[in-house]
Amino acid sequence: MFAHVNADRSRFVGELAEFVRFPSISAQPTHTADVRGCADWLAKHLHRIGLEQVKIEPTGGHPLVYAEWDRLPHQPTVLIYGHYDVQPADPLSEWRTDPFQPVVRDNNLYGRGASDDKGQLFAHVKALEAYLQTAGSLPVNVKCLFEGEEETGSSNLPAFLLRHRNMLQADVAVISDMSILAPDRPAITYALRGALSLEVEVSGPKRDLHSGLFGGVVHNPLQALCEMIAQLHDRTGRIAIPGFYDKVRAWPAAERRFMARSGPADAQILRNAGAQEVWGEPDFSLYERATIRPALSVTGMSGGYRGAGPKSVIPARAVAKLNFRLVPDQDPVEIEHLVRRHVAAITPSTVRSRVRKQSAARPALADRSHPAMRATAAAYARGFGAAPIFLRSGGTIPVVNMLQEKLGIPTVLMGFALPDDRAHGPNEKFYLPNFFNGIATSIAFLAEIGMQQRSRSLRAQHHPDIAEVAGVGMVR
Amino acid sequence: MFAHVNADRSRFVGELAEFVRFPSISAQPTHTADVRGCADWLAKHLHRIGLEQVKIEPTGGHPLVYAEWDRLPHQPTVLIYGHYDVQPADPLSEWRTDPFQPVVRDNNLYGRGASDDKGQLFAHVKALEAYLQTAGSLPVNVKCLFEGEEETGSSNLPAFLLRHRNMLQADVAVISDMSILAPDRPAITYALRGALSLEVEVSGPKRDLHSGLFGGVVHNPLQALCEMIAQLHDRTGRIAIPGFYDKVRAWPAAERRFMARSGPADAQILRNAGAQEVWGEPDFSLYERATIRPALSVTGMSGGYRGAGPKSVIPARAVAKLNFRLVPDQDPVEIEHLVRRHVAAITPSTVRSRVRKQSAARPALADRSHPAMRATAAAYARGFGAAPIFLRSGGTIPVVNMLQEKLGIPTVLMGFALPDDRAHGPNEKFYLPNFFNGIATSIAFLAEIGMQQRSRSLRAQHHPDIAEVAGVGMVR
Repeated sequence: MFAHVNADRSRFVGELAEFVRFPSISAQPTHTADVRGCADWLAKHLHRIGLEQVKIEPTGGHPLVYAEWDRLPHQPTVLIYGHYDVQPADPLSEWRTDPFQPVVRDNNLYGRGASDDKGQLFAHVKALEAYLQTAGSLPVNVKCLFEGEEETGSSNLPAFLLRHRNMLQADVAVISDMSILAPDRPAITYALRGALSLEVEVSGPKRDLHSGLFGGVVHNPLQALCEMIAQLHDRTGRIAIPGFYDKVRAWPAAERRFMARSGPADAQILRNAGAQEVWGEPDFSLYERATIRPALSVTGMSGGYRGAGPKSVIPARAVAKLNFRLVPDQDPVEIEHLVRRHVAAITPSTVRSRVRKQSAARPALADRSHPAMRATAAAYARGFGAAPIFLRSGGTIPVVNMLQEKLGIPTVLMGFALPDDRAHGPNEKFYLPNFFNGIATSIAFLAEIGMQQRSRSLRAQHHPDIAEVAGVGMVR
Repeated sequence: MFAHVNADRSRFVGELAEFVRFPSISAQPTHTADVRGCADWLAKHLHRIGLEQVKIEPTGGHPLVYAEWDRLPHQPTVLIYGHYDVQPADPLSEWRTDPFQPVVRDNNLYGRGASDDKGQLFAHVKALEAYLQTAGSLPVNVKCLFEGEEETGSSNLPAFLLRHRNMLQADVAVISDMSILAPDRPAITYALRGALSLEVEVSGPKRDLHSGLFGGVVHNPLQALCEMIAQLHDRTGRIAIPGFYDKVRAWPAAERRFMARSGPADAQILRNAGAQEVWGEPDFSLYERATIRPALSVTGMSGGYRGAGPKSVIPARAVAKLNFRLVPDQDPVEIEHLVRRHVAAITPSTVRSRVRKQSAARPALADRSHPAMRATAAAYARGFGAAPIFLRSGGTIPVVNMLQEKLGIPTVLMGFALPDDRAHGPNEKFYLPNFFNGIATSIAFLAEIGMQQRSRSLRAQHHPDIAEVAGVGMVR
């Protein structure tokens, strides 16, 4: 199998480039057909490598791609989740090459989605191909579920999971949509933050006004919005929304010591960020601020003119996009309520404000001592030649919480990306040695799981909300 | 002549529509050729109606169009200034019809620039045509100077005026680039605010970051910019930049009483703005806040994502466009210095900031008792059937100060627009009865000036920096 992978490296990269070429931007309605085209391509590809029951499953939004290989009734079943949709490519002007004309430079494949998540998803697909083309079978049953709405908050996924809970029954789920530390330092992500994306719109005069004729007599909605945003954090960097921290879990000293030992140092995080100055909530390391503490980012603002040169306009309205990251035991519904109340309270009487929810996802947390984690560690050792360390991520993968809470499937996060892959930014890339090591890791993971006895060792040990294991809270 | 105008109304509107059809957006480099095409069209038109010495005068930026009729050595010379460039048409989605496909609805011509300034400029052109086509001559010498960079701050105009001060010698200048109060309530603008447009850029991390992975550990430049903008005004609506008000002239009670009698009431200004709540500097009427008091408007912000849906990004940098309006005796150079110092002082240590100047213009002020003002009043009475009132405008016409200060030409502001013409906003329009009354007013104005003796009554009474007349400061 490994020989098969080695022999076909350049074909695999070419296929991944084909996959990346689709501008499958789920957030932008103008790309609906591209998302669909990408799903079609993926489905055809899964069929070609020998998977069965390949389906494009419609949802209220973009479709899911499903495929399975389910011929071993006495073996465990692995659910492989990934997403084929991508973030918008803005700002286009900052890309060195076209985000949807992937190119290889210095052992990296550049393109939007190369790393997040097409490249990582595709590593599993190529592992399945290696088994089916060489052994003619898999060591476990496999179900693939590839989503087209992850980047917009997976809004149709919960209903789909509940509707198809029988079809999706599995002993363990694996997701590859995150970073390891370095090419020789694999990592298993055992915690993810939740997310809540809102838009705040401030409106004032009925129409855009001339800033010469009306400057100084009406409250500029864009200015008012800035004034409101300035009130969302206090001077220390804490979020200033009343009640926001009430449910944030305080971790035992043992877990914080484990994090300090295993996680990146402040200097490393600053280097990854390309930043010079730390910022944020006092009394926590940067790794803690980014993982066990919540955050609020203004991810965009519009209102007025942003072309070249000046324009004398007071905009009639202005919009800010807010992105919260939530941690156990914050609930997105409760937080949305707190934000709405606070925005209403700080809206000046001279303007009106409105809050719109765009997406929400709960935080997720896995048990580091679960047998599937041991299988993952062994697989990484084989694929990357090094034992992985256990890390928390500040990112959000909505499906993890859903798989764990709604379907009761323990979920392993097996990242193949690198911290400098520029997920969501211009010049996103995927490091090709990680692609090939990822394929090898996936092959080894399926073999490890195949050696475990179905449902005994895998599912029985997963008891959400029951116990604390090794100082880490169970999934909730 | 008036019969000529009446007979050709629909042709005049058709020609104005042709003029508006050029997207002569001076701020946007992609429209450079359109600005030039518009200048060509205008020059050809001026030649066709009988003007002489028609020239397209190059500058460092967009060209000026010049034409003259200079055959009466013993008569006064009138310089007609206007601008054929227009503001950007953003946001395009809010236009009911294409901004550059002008249409007539309800006696209004809709299109970007219809009112500001193509329609108003064109009223004078049609007045000249009426004289030349009927009488075969003008009652005065005329020089036309039509600029292509007014909307970006007339940056090349001062050098042009100085270089061509002989060619441009005139006894009085007339500019039509402002509003009257209502179709039956003409007004003479005797004061304009200055302007200063700056961009403030805040930068932080080297590249855009994922708000999940890095939210909470670096200071978001967009958030920092909001926090800085929130510090540019105090809670009462006064500008909070140290020293900003030091040179603002305190007007005598008599002038404020004159303004209270002649100017619009607060309720009228709110109605014009389509706003419900007043805002701004305490202790001044809205008319005063918009004219004799300075203002600061945030006219646009960029940074992060503003497409549909969410995007998890912390932008590497964010930019705000600031538009100051200045009053006597504020100097744009001094104010720019104060702003730069204040921005540097309030920039958090976690980010870097940079200020770029985009344009600057000094305030302008004219003497209400000048003979040219009396000629204008008589012309309005003829053209609009009502005596005009004297108003200040909060807007800025950079050329006024230049004509007065650099060439010593007294300047009359003879508006034909209406307050609801939506200059600079979506669905800009020009009220066609004002177009025709404007043509008649221009005809009458030229006749009135023709009856005054050259340089005696017109220029001799213009003594900048010497006296206060009727409680109004002279031009400075």
